[in-house]
Amino acid sequence: MKEPHILSAFDRDLEAVQAHVLRMGGLVEQALLDAAEALETRDEALAVRVQQGDRAIDALEETINAECARLLALRAPTAGDLRVVLSVMRIAAALERSGDYAKNLAKRSLVLAEMRPLGGTSSSIQRMARTVVLRLKEALDAYIGHEVAVAEDIRARDREVDQMYNSLFRELLTHMMEDPRNIGAAMHLHFIAKNIERVGDHATSIAEQVIYLATGALPGEERPKAEMLPGADGAGADLAGGR
Amino acid sequence: MKEPHILSAFDRDLEAVQAHVLRMGGLVEQALLDAAEALETRDEALAVRVQQGDRAIDALEETINAECARLLALRAPTAGDLRVVLSVMRIAAALERSGDYAKNLAKRSLVLAEMRPLGGTSSSIQRMARTVVLRLKEALDAYIGHEVAVAEDIRARDREVDQMYNSLFRELLTHMMEDPRNIGAAMHLHFIAKNIERVGDHATSIAEQVIYLATGALPGEERPKAEMLPGADGAGADLAGGR
Repeated sequence: MKEPHILSAFDRDLEAVQAHVLRMGGLVEQALLDAAEALETRDEALAVRVQQGDRAIDALEETINAECARLLALRAPTAGDLRVVLSVMRIAAALERSGDYAKNLAKRSLVLAEMRPLGGTSSSIQRMARTVVLRLKEALDAYIGHEVAVAEDIRARDREVDQMYNSLFRELLTHMMEDPRNIGAAMHLHFIAKNIERVGDHATSIAEQVIYLATGALPGEERPKAEMLPGADGAGADLAGGR
Repeated sequence: MKEPHILSAFDRDLEAVQAHVLRMGGLVEQALLDAAEALETRDEALAVRVQQGDRAIDALEETINAECARLLALRAPTAGDLRVVLSVMRIAAALERSGDYAKNLAKRSLVLAEMRPLGGTSSSIQRMARTVVLRLKEALDAYIGHEVAVAEDIRARDREVDQMYNSLFRELLTHMMEDPRNIGAAMHLHFIAKNIERVGDHATSIAEQVIYLATGALPGEERPKAEMLPGADGAGADLAGGR
């Protein structure tokens, strides 16, 4: 927890940058929800809007990086203040990549709109997207509020999204085995699911920045993590470490 | 091109950090080559060594970040010097993620060793890995030598790796359509190919840091990029923007 103190010029600058980070987070969250919605409802106009919206997210990351560089040059922060600036840049990078995944999901939804649907897989994907968006929101709130305990909790729950991915993966495998004509659609849906799982990893990495800010060190490498992958017999084989 | 000048304390510190970046690059390149070799030759011991070796890569990134934070706090660099420090941190992040992909490749190679091989796909993957490793090497050399023209060239050739990915993707699709028992192995190989393509993207992003260092701005967003994805009929559909 940061001690309350009178606002310095550094703090005022930092608040402006953090407002941009929160705005960026909001855009990324909405892009993910919209892209999943476009997939589920085959709404091509919405998918196109998500794709176009990614430019605004990228532009915000550039603004944040430029502001952080200015802060470093002008205020020469040290210790805790320096860590805050570094963590802001890392969070912006995690958000930018999450935005890329939303854009990619929107693109694939346009291709999938031309294919026959695979059972309830797109609603499973929508559920997964809602879960990681919630995770992102919680991580950003924990960051703004310096809530280390919440951050630890987000980190511990990383496995939930992995498990949603694993169960969707089995569903897709079944569709492909049943009918080779499902393979094309299943490959797209598999990528989408994997990318949403990666957004979950980014939410976790934002939570880790909260811990870094409080302690000066990132938590240990080993997060609880499980990835189901097809074994020799096509059945699930546990393969730890998703990335 | 940086003007030659007498070595300052900042320059000496920077040289030490850059030596770590080069060492990290060397480890990542070797990990990628070894992982692809382990896949091709079904060498499980080598795959395990690659997985274990990722810790050293992660530790180097932490060292680099700590040294950069120290440099920022102690020397308070501005303008070009500040850009160098920021670019070093971004390059270390790109290398760390590339190392993760090598580790993931090694893990999947262990699962694939239990499955029946799919034609020449693992040697196609080895070729692809060699190409991106070359690209990484060139990008790091361009960085050290401040070679903007070389960096521009690496950026322009991003499409080559994408095309290798596309042709492998078609191969895998054919194997899956032919025999559903190939689906499990093909899914792994597809992920491996996609991850190697992503390492290619990281090499490009390192090249972009060279341009950022010289000009103070990242080159425009739009890189030449093509990704083949199965269309409604299972045939290739061009989908620009791979990430």
